[in-house]
Amino acid sequence: MRKIVLFGLMQSALLVSFSQSVPDADIISKLKQEESQNSKVMDIAFHLTDVSGPRLTASPNFMNAANWAKTTLSGWGLENARLEPWGDFGKGWQQERCYIAMTKPYYTPIVAIPRAWTGSTPGKKMINGGIVLLKAKDSASLVQYAGTLKNKIIMLWVDDALKPSFEPDGARLADSSLAKMAKAEMNVAPGQRPANDQARQQFMARQSFQRNLTKLFNEEKPALVLSINPRGNDGTVFVQGGGEYGKDAPEGPANIMLSSDDYLRLQRLVNAGVPVEVEADVKTRFFDKDLKGYNVIAEIPGTDPKLKDEVVMLGGHLDSWQGATGATDNAAGCSVMMEAVRLLKAMNFKPRRTIRIALWSGEEQGLFGSRNYVKNHLGDPATMKLMPEQQNISAYYNLDNGTGKIRGIYLQGNEAVRPLFTSWLQPFNGEGASTVTINNTGGTDHLAFDAVGIPGFQFIQDPIEYDTRTHHTNMDTYDHLVPEDLKQASVIVASFVYNTAMRDEKIPRKELPKPREGQRPI
Amino acid sequence: MRKIVLFGLMQSALLVSFSQSVPDADIISKLKQEESQNSKVMDIAFHLTDVSGPRLTASPNFMNAANWAKTTLSGWGLENARLEPWGDFGKGWQQERCYIAMTKPYYTPIVAIPRAWTGSTPGKKMINGGIVLLKAKDSASLVQYAGTLKNKIIMLWVDDALKPSFEPDGARLADSSLAKMAKAEMNVAPGQRPANDQARQQFMARQSFQRNLTKLFNEEKPALVLSINPRGNDGTVFVQGGGEYGKDAPEGPANIMLSSDDYLRLQRLVNAGVPVEVEADVKTRFFDKDLKGYNVIAEIPGTDPKLKDEVVMLGGHLDSWQGATGATDNAAGCSVMMEAVRLLKAMNFKPRRTIRIALWSGEEQGLFGSRNYVKNHLGDPATMKLMPEQQNISAYYNLDNGTGKIRGIYLQGNEAVRPLFTSWLQPFNGEGASTVTINNTGGTDHLAFDAVGIPGFQFIQDPIEYDTRTHHTNMDTYDHLVPEDLKQASVIVASFVYNTAMRDEKIPRKELPKPREGQRPI
Repeated sequence: MRKIVLFGLMQSALLVSFSQSVPDADIISKLKQEESQNSKVMDIAFHLTDVSGPRLTASPNFMNAANWAKTTLSGWGLENARLEPWGDFGKGWQQERCYIAMTKPYYTPIVAIPRAWTGSTPGKKMINGGIVLLKAKDSASLVQYAGTLKNKIIMLWVDDALKPSFEPDGARLADSSLAKMAKAEMNVAPGQRPANDQARQQFMARQSFQRNLTKLFNEEKPALVLSINPRGNDGTVFVQGGGEYGKDAPEGPANIMLSSDDYLRLQRLVNAGVPVEVEADVKTRFFDKDLKGYNVIAEIPGTDPKLKDEVVMLGGHLDSWQGATGATDNAAGCSVMMEAVRLLKAMNFKPRRTIRIALWSGEEQGLFGSRNYVKNHLGDPATMKLMPEQQNISAYYNLDNGTGKIRGIYLQGNEAVRPLFTSWLQPFNGEGASTVTINNTGGTDHLAFDAVGIPGFQFIQDPIEYDTRTHHTNMDTYDHLVPEDLKQASVIVASFVYNTAMRDEKIPRKELPKPREGQRPI
Repeated sequence: MRKIVLFGLMQSALLVSFSQSVPDADIISKLKQEESQNSKVMDIAFHLTDVSGPRLTASPNFMNAANWAKTTLSGWGLENARLEPWGDFGKGWQQERCYIAMTKPYYTPIVAIPRAWTGSTPGKKMINGGIVLLKAKDSASLVQYAGTLKNKIIMLWVDDALKPSFEPDGARLADSSLAKMAKAEMNVAPGQRPANDQARQQFMARQSFQRNLTKLFNEEKPALVLSINPRGNDGTVFVQGGGEYGKDAPEGPANIMLSSDDYLRLQRLVNAGVPVEVEADVKTRFFDKDLKGYNVIAEIPGTDPKLKDEVVMLGGHLDSWQGATGATDNAAGCSVMMEAVRLLKAMNFKPRRTIRIALWSGEEQGLFGSRNYVKNHLGDPATMKLMPEQQNISAYYNLDNGTGKIRGIYLQGNEAVRPLFTSWLQPFNGEGASTVTINNTGGTDHLAFDAVGIPGFQFIQDPIEYDTRTHHTNMDTYDHLVPEDLKQASVIVASFVYNTAMRDEKIPRKELPKPREGQRPI
């Protein structure tokens, strides 16, 4: 029988009903102590970010980081550490030079990042020239430019204007927001977002315009395309893809995302008829020797003869976009997950169930790593044909919302787990983690598990500067991590994994979802 | 007799005592109408920022902007528009190329701006190499590096760590702050700051360390110095000088200010022993043909035979630092001042006194343009020997605190002006401008006039993002201007100038200051 510790009067009343689920206070205390005295979470983050660089799926940097993670997990004594191919992804890509400056009417360097999987400026030397400003807002008005753009430096007119920000970049979740989440009734299920015809039509039109634009660029072969993402300001550039990574996809022209200040200045000058020239040297490289995608997997084997075939999984995606080193998206999550298993190993913990850590790839392109892992090992959400191992995964815990500390957990509609998680958070209530919400949250790898009926959870985190400064930007760097928050999260994740590995039963499950054949993936 | 208009019960009570000072409501209304219908303030700002570029004192860009301003003021019908030399400044300087990237362990472009008046990397081609990390915090520990730095790429260890920001970048002055300013008794007089021995000693030690560092760099001739200004983050780089502009000053090595994220990443990698290489191409150019500094001056001549030799002055500094286009520091102030005289000309206003606009240079290096103007025409604050024209300047109005709208005015210790300015602000109370504070404010060109006993005033402005994002940064761009705020300020300045030009008396004066011989300039 496990030790029951009273945390105080309020909690002791709760404990009466959830006594089976009460965390082992001694273990929690040891985890906290190890993390406070010997934390490695920032060392891990340093290797995943500064040392490895941007970890675009299938890029050399990604493979370096994945191999480092595998070696490191092995070094801590985890078993079966491996890079597991999950299927065909496509070409790797990296930037090898990115320089652009305005040279007339005066010299000024420009902040820019190549969009992923886009090409190089022609020739081996710097290119020079004026800028062609395309004034087209729909596909029809693109036609006028056919046959005129070859070897030109081009930009597309945008209506954007920047505004000062009167809201803080950084935030922690307010008590009132957390209370609202805790009281929520089930929100809309994943994949069943409310239809809004007008919004959908606008979205489709934008998508179609973007496709036609890409087609025009690929046909016309301009020397360089300048892009703007108006969400960024003050030198923060939001940048993701721009080209195609499929095996046989055409290589488009060089296409770089400029800081909004630089872009709008060029646009105003060109539009006013002021003679403008830029010089640029953009070189990128594609890799097509190995088109497979890989996840990093490692295990702490279970020790209870009856339960060791059962598995507790934890993970996060290791891949990032290319603008920076993907610190908050998602070296943070990977560092916490790695630190959580390190903590458990450091305590020489012998789990009843097997613990399996997974660091995914292809998440940014569509949760490919986790979805294919699930399809390869657990079941297919399209048909709901399940494999035997689907029964064995007790739960999957994911972390992928930045550097902020854990404030609670999303039940993902699984009400039966509420008392369990409420109890498991008790030792961390004093550190701000207490909220259990029935809500779903989307956009990351726990969905892959949820889609085949395996309890998949994502923690609630303080946003810090995730949406304003770091998520998919050139500022997603090590310096935007908050060490104390990552330490708190590491201990909480370790405790959840510990509790899941040790309890007699698996985590309660929801009803099996219906097959999603013909629907878009969750 | 001027028309007296009642603004309401509260105001009408005030008007009894200040009736002579009540603004002409018809004029104010026409100024507001002209600004709202035909504003040119953003066109002016566009020319001063986007078109002219960074306007470092004595640089070609500054001269372009100054000549454009002169021509534009002439074009509006101002008279005696000229570039007036104020004395010797030193060398002009501009950047002609600034490229740096990390090439090992992976490629990443680095955000950097050359520090003003620093040199170029050696040779005509790109340089490549590792980084020498200097670990020196005081002058004594610099000695160990003598003889080791030639042609190296070097950086200095810093202890800084970045933190997320939980305060808004942008702000407007709270009512409570304004109320406090309005109630203030005289604050510390300019130049009489409270002594704090410890702070002063620390400041002196830092200054001495910087001087020794510059000396070391000039002697050792490293290929490139990397600098960090830890105030900036998220891609915002604070950058000012780094070299000397004096006629015979030595040209130091290339010295560039990096974004803090880039700097700290390099530092961590080098410090951890990870092999790091960078490539860089930094070219700057000095100009020594004309070492003089210039102000832009233009006038609307007075028309009252008795008063036309008296002058109302308004101005702001046209020079900027080099990191961006000096939009909020201080194209904003110059645009507002130019727009104010344009408004008055557009109304075909015939002032009783002469109105003189001055756009200064050398402000960023020490209020040189305004101080020397005062010394050349009005008097010397060191000796308090005054010239005849000192008697004729009724007032000088300055604007130099960014893009924010006007919230009131600093009396600069001149209590006698309070009723006048209180009354002059009445037509703008509804637009947030009502505060009259006895306080001094420093740091800009009105001090030059105040120092010789001429009423010199600076307006109170909303800070917006001045201290957080734009003041002396690479983000001080046109896009950080707030058009509506600049329009409001233009009308208020025009009205103050109008009122000063039309009233029977000059603006009341404070007692003459004592000679400041032997003291540092205000």
